[in-house]
Amino acid sequence: MTDRASKESNDENKAAKEQATKEFTSFVQDKGLIWGPEPEIYGGLAGFYTYGPMGKLLKNKVENSVRRIFQSNELWELEGPTIMPDIVWKASGHLDTFNDPIIYTKDKKESYRADKLLEEKGIKIDKFDDTFLLELIKKHKIKSPNGKELELNIERQSLMLKTKVAGTEASMRPETATVTYLPFPRFFNFFRRQLPIGVFQIGKAYRNEISPRQSVIRGREFTQAEGQLFLDPLKKNNWEKYNSIKELKLPFWTKEQQKEGKDPIDITIKQAIDKNHVKSQAYVWCLWLAYNQFVSMGIPAERIRLRQHLDDEKAFYADDAWDIEIKLNSLGWTECCGVHDRTDYDLKQHSKFSGQKLEAIRENGERFVPHVLEIAFGTDRPTYALIDLFYEKKSEEEGKTVFKIPYHMAPVDVSIFPLMKKTELIEVAEQVKKEIEKFYVVDYDLTGSIGRRYLRSATVGTPFAITIDYDSLEKKDVTLRDRDSEKQIRVKISELLDTLRKLINSQISFEKAGSSVK
Amino acid sequence: MTDRASKESNDENKAAKEQATKEFTSFVQDKGLIWGPEPEIYGGLAGFYTYGPMGKLLKNKVENSVRRIFQSNELWELEGPTIMPDIVWKASGHLDTFNDPIIYTKDKKESYRADKLLEEKGIKIDKFDDTFLLELIKKHKIKSPNGKELELNIERQSLMLKTKVAGTEASMRPETATVTYLPFPRFFNFFRRQLPIGVFQIGKAYRNEISPRQSVIRGREFTQAEGQLFLDPLKKNNWEKYNSIKELKLPFWTKEQQKEGKDPIDITIKQAIDKNHVKSQAYVWCLWLAYNQFVSMGIPAERIRLRQHLDDEKAFYADDAWDIEIKLNSLGWTECCGVHDRTDYDLKQHSKFSGQKLEAIRENGERFVPHVLEIAFGTDRPTYALIDLFYEKKSEEEGKTVFKIPYHMAPVDVSIFPLMKKTELIEVAEQVKKEIEKFYVVDYDLTGSIGRRYLRSATVGTPFAITIDYDSLEKKDVTLRDRDSEKQIRVKISELLDTLRKLINSQISFEKAGSSVK
Repeated sequence: MTDRASKESNDENKAAKEQATKEFTSFVQDKGLIWGPEPEIYGGLAGFYTYGPMGKLLKNKVENSVRRIFQSNELWELEGPTIMPDIVWKASGHLDTFNDPIIYTKDKKESYRADKLLEEKGIKIDKFDDTFLLELIKKHKIKSPNGKELELNIERQSLMLKTKVAGTEASMRPETATVTYLPFPRFFNFFRRQLPIGVFQIGKAYRNEISPRQSVIRGREFTQAEGQLFLDPLKKNNWEKYNSIKELKLPFWTKEQQKEGKDPIDITIKQAIDKNHVKSQAYVWCLWLAYNQFVSMGIPAERIRLRQHLDDEKAFYADDAWDIEIKLNSLGWTECCGVHDRTDYDLKQHSKFSGQKLEAIRENGERFVPHVLEIAFGTDRPTYALIDLFYEKKSEEEGKTVFKIPYHMAPVDVSIFPLMKKTELIEVAEQVKKEIEKFYVVDYDLTGSIGRRYLRSATVGTPFAITIDYDSLEKKDVTLRDRDSEKQIRVKISELLDTLRKLINSQISFEKAGSSVK
Repeated sequence: MTDRASKESNDENKAAKEQATKEFTSFVQDKGLIWGPEPEIYGGLAGFYTYGPMGKLLKNKVENSVRRIFQSNELWELEGPTIMPDIVWKASGHLDTFNDPIIYTKDKKESYRADKLLEEKGIKIDKFDDTFLLELIKKHKIKSPNGKELELNIERQSLMLKTKVAGTEASMRPETATVTYLPFPRFFNFFRRQLPIGVFQIGKAYRNEISPRQSVIRGREFTQAEGQLFLDPLKKNNWEKYNSIKELKLPFWTKEQQKEGKDPIDITIKQAIDKNHVKSQAYVWCLWLAYNQFVSMGIPAERIRLRQHLDDEKAFYADDAWDIEIKLNSLGWTECCGVHDRTDYDLKQHSKFSGQKLEAIRENGERFVPHVLEIAFGTDRPTYALIDLFYEKKSEEEGKTVFKIPYHMAPVDVSIFPLMKKTELIEVAEQVKKEIEKFYVVDYDLTGSIGRRYLRSATVGTPFAITIDYDSLEKKDVTLRDRDSEKQIRVKISELLDTLRKLINSQISFEKAGSSVK
């Protein structure tokens, strides 16, 4: 290819990519998934979003999946405050160390994260140290994204959002972990003073990011889901639940593989332990649990990898540390979860600052501070990931744009359509609706041609559509339509709920769920 | 009775009441329901709480009930930010008018809400005006609760919690309503520009209360659930859904009845309209929907009343305004919900401040600003109400303390107990657990005598307990025990899930759900 031809081809690629991004953004907004940054009518403040009716139903599905998986693995949900007085954040270390390296332009009008400016130029950062960052910026003659000169000075900006409650200095939580550790004496008693104890929280957290972007992927307000496992450090390698999972394969990507430019490979959990990629059975069980969370939400396994932290990446308190990454169509591999061995760091800190003993007792009477293994992720990123991965844009010749989300994760479970706006059809349709909405999310839609309604229903990913027609009045049955195959069957109204349950849980095939329709 | 005897009897009553309060508080803490104020280990900051494992499961049940009821009435959930820049709160009126009248002690060491000090002395406040409040305080020679002289001056303290996001002054939302109104253009389009449109939000809100108290009844951080109905004001009395509810009776307590010292009476919704107690069909439908929310959560109907606001109580924007009150054992009649006709106040304000048109169009082409009917309540109070109403303390002779919460609202649905810690029993129990926890919250408990485990299960309100014994291995069945009747039946493992579903939805009687156990 000549240079010119190559440039034209690049331009075409770029234009096609921009067009695709534009179409995806329209889909996300028009289908009621995600809106913002809010307040949109006032021009918007970066990093704050609204989930629309379809987005919120999807996020609820994600959060309920998280609840079910944690709960079945004997982690119990708590709900703690999102604001705490600053003594708590002093103890946790956030007040002193939770900040970003900021660099200003010479005219002081713009500010950026120094490390992000380097990363965006493809410059590898080996050390997260301000002097080192500044040297890299000098060396590579980095300017601001719109070409302005930078002031060669790095300031630290706290990520904590501050407030004041009745005169007391306080901050909004930047994660849920700390607030989960605080009532340790309470839940230690509730669980009859026996370790291990598993708890989790799903709730809002806040970070005063300098330049939030990429929709809800990096917001200033976001929802965290964090599991915390309290255990005896002596039992980390005597972990009962390890035995039932050790033969399972996971896509491990060790720090050595990363350094050598190799791809992750699927090895058994036992191999990962034997080869010392992970230090303990309990830790690798947490890694398996975290992976299981994403698979249960419907993220395809081939889009997930477990990436070990490089040595200089680890938080100061973390012993073992791995991330779970998901490969998005729009953004490539994206960090979606961190699993950390936090040791006894947090309980010791809060014990020191509060003067309260935060301990457990071994059978032999020894007192010790439990260790904490943490599974930390958010629910915004998987929600976004499900939209990103299952949105299928078709060109006009190919047909309609659809949302091929796995059936169990669809925002709406069932659409109900009376064929026409006639009292006798509406009456039956409303009875059907009343029965089904006790268990499922229903969209009841009266307007437009039936074909148009099927299309609308498929575009937001609804797996099944029920149509009530004149035959329904006589034969007490309805047409059930499958989103993906577009096949239709007739099902008795009296068996509808049971049939839907089996279909949504993939217990029967669609064709066998009713009588066929020509 | 002599004075002395009467005093002794009063003292006894007081002591008994204090003892009961103490026992209730222990129940709430020890059974993992509500802990705080947090951070407890640091001494606590008033108004911030943690829901423990049982409390959070109960709160989830409450919130899922709210979702189901709103959704089946075609209100769709949104999730908006909890922080917005101050321009939004200027427009909504909160920044200027959302504050409390504060009075200090002469030594400036304590501060109180002036109106609350008067109310606590049983003094009726006719006018919420600072000069008037101060006159009442002078007239009745009110002192601080611990007897200090008050400084005769009232200051206004804002209830808004302030923060700063990347240099922008911002506040945390004191309700969810405002944040629900902001994306009006987005959801107006999503719902195909047709009114009525119903949306709701469940999420955190914050108020810098001067003296929060009564556990989660008045917290500084709390969860709101607010439904918003956007409609054409010309259709308020031409409301289709009114016809299906007009013959239902509700416990209306009009302002006239209140003034005359009369009790509320059950009248039909139609009578309430005909007698002009409520102004519109659409408004009374919202009142019915709000009432329905509390009944669906399991609050007994006889504990609920609808109280009309007195003329001087209404918010400045509210047209019709009624509260829903619940009679608690601990606190008496307690406000749990407000239903307001907010007219076009909010959309007009945000339109004015943002410069954006927030309008709908009639079929004849007329443009108009939709009116908003609001159903505003929290999920903390009903959660607390369910604990308060269904906690049954028994004296030691009478037997055990139980939590007689309606089955569909119980924190845990089913307990699973292998009779003994034997591998073969555990294996079957784990299979049973795996199947049931796909749909229900399970507590799997291995330790203690079976009687002790039944007791623990009943104390936290779990409706059913499954025991796997040696007969289970052979006959593939289990013992199912009912919380309230303490009866036991045998059920085939293959039919267990179906049986539980029918029992929890009250579709069969317990005795008929399996074969009897002698």
